[in-house]
Amino acid sequence: MTGLALPADLDETTVTAAAVASFDNTPDPRLRACLSILVKHLHAAVREMEPTIEEWEQAVDFLTATGQKCDDTRQEFVLLSDVLGISSLVENINHRKSPSATEATVLGPFHMTESPQRELGESIDEVAKSEPCLVTGRVVSVDGTPLRGAGVDVWQADEDGYYDVQRPGVLPPGNGRGLFTTDDDGRFCFTTVVPSHYPIPTDGPVGQLLLATSRHPYRPAHIHFIVTANSHLPVTTHIFVADSPYLDSDAVFAVKRSLVRDFRRTDDADTATRHGLPNPFMHTEIELVLEPARGEGSA
Amino acid sequence: MTGLALPADLDETTVTAAAVASFDNTPDPRLRACLSILVKHLHAAVREMEPTIEEWEQAVDFLTATGQKCDDTRQEFVLLSDVLGISSLVENINHRKSPSATEATVLGPFHMTESPQRELGESIDEVAKSEPCLVTGRVVSVDGTPLRGAGVDVWQADEDGYYDVQRPGVLPPGNGRGLFTTDDDGRFCFTTVVPSHYPIPTDGPVGQLLLATSRHPYRPAHIHFIVTANSHLPVTTHIFVADSPYLDSDAVFAVKRSLVRDFRRTDDADTATRHGLPNPFMHTEIELVLEPARGEGSA
Repeated sequence: MTGLALPADLDETTVTAAAVASFDNTPDPRLRACLSILVKHLHAAVREMEPTIEEWEQAVDFLTATGQKCDDTRQEFVLLSDVLGISSLVENINHRKSPSATEATVLGPFHMTESPQRELGESIDEVAKSEPCLVTGRVVSVDGTPLRGAGVDVWQADEDGYYDVQRPGVLPPGNGRGLFTTDDDGRFCFTTVVPSHYPIPTDGPVGQLLLATSRHPYRPAHIHFIVTANSHLPVTTHIFVADSPYLDSDAVFAVKRSLVRDFRRTDDADTATRHGLPNPFMHTEIELVLEPARGEGSA
Repeated sequence: MTGLALPADLDETTVTAAAVASFDNTPDPRLRACLSILVKHLHAAVREMEPTIEEWEQAVDFLTATGQKCDDTRQEFVLLSDVLGISSLVENINHRKSPSATEATVLGPFHMTESPQRELGESIDEVAKSEPCLVTGRVVSVDGTPLRGAGVDVWQADEDGYYDVQRPGVLPPGNGRGLFTTDDDGRFCFTTVVPSHYPIPTDGPVGQLLLATSRHPYRPAHIHFIVTANSHLPVTTHIFVADSPYLDSDAVFAVKRSLVRDFRRTDDADTATRHGLPNPFMHTEIELVLEPARGEGSA
């Protein structure tokens, strides 16, 4: 407990220093630093906005509704962070790395259930109503060394733009998700459907914000990946479908040119037979490049 | 709907401009301005903090829990705004007024029920287990003109530091609250108990924040007022009890020297008889001074 020893009169000019100083006795220096920074910038925003009391109340109501929209399968504050570009900024700050490594992008709000462990080659599409798409790839270190035993956690929306958790009872849990382990050559493969572009959920406060600001809610079509390997930094990223709409206006600011891949109709009878697919079939090929963890070898 | 026409690569440097620009087509210019300012300052805070992904997740969890703690009788986001000094700043910005008018201070989170209409002289203390305190006062314009028919909305914690809504079933609804109308001389009076200092609610995320930062949760003893009168600007304020602890370290940064009043044991048999009080009795006297609304007369 601390006596704050506030100035006797807190006014428009003195209150910010008092609020920053109120955290001076925080035992954890990192928490203290973050709170000082946050208070300073939030006060600066308030000074520049000069909100009316009514506007401040609207902000309180918006934040309250955002919190109350959250449940086991919905994270509205992540969505808010996403549409304000904050998630993208945080990801970028945390992944200043070798330019040859696969770029990171946002986690998004749909990684809330554990992906089912699957065998290489298995389909993550449990509905099988659309043309199958083969995804083949490799996990390598920045020097090209294949990374065997790497974990490749995959999740995606289906051909109608829905994740499994958005359509309980219609889509089986685990649809569009899979946790794969690379083989001795660092390779992985699975079949799926080409995901559709889709709107982020618009039935909550974030949807109202987009509506009020004439912003569309769409994300270009993509497959999510979290890739982990021994002695390497993990990467959270997407692969975007090259001809998807909204590549130039992603609602959550996550597109990077290096992450866009062609999904091509391919005529290759041998590969089709090997993967139990009709010929021709859709195909994309992905190389995921991890950076060695600092101070450790890469092999 | 707008094509954002994002740069093909959003990185740590370009994402802020892209996020600000995403609100360029907002029809309401005020909303557009506020969102630009907010995005700019939030991104600046993130750049300065450089949060890890785990810290960003902790922030999301904290905001979510704050929203989910809110209900009909609890507003945890107002409490958060209060302990960060933001409510105080917003109040101060909205009440840049004549130095002779009564200063404003924060609304606080306990004005969520309507105060019962009461006759002048009535007691707002429906429990009557402690020494009564007479509050007499006057509402005047800055030039001294008494304001008759002014609304004086009063709410306060009891002698144990609790508002009615905090102890349902123990305290009658409306205890410590009253809506009075001034007489022809602008006067009002009521009896009550001297309120106690009290902790803001600590059983939620804001309480955890105070604990983690070694801040105490106490507010010095006070009575809340919202005063309204024809042709005058309303004022939301407190009167603080002069000898209360925590006057120099209010958890919500709301104390102003001009709002501190003596509560004195008074020996005055006539006044005691007139108000049905034992003699001596506790007493405080309050003048509430309103500023005329711009462009209107004060009488």
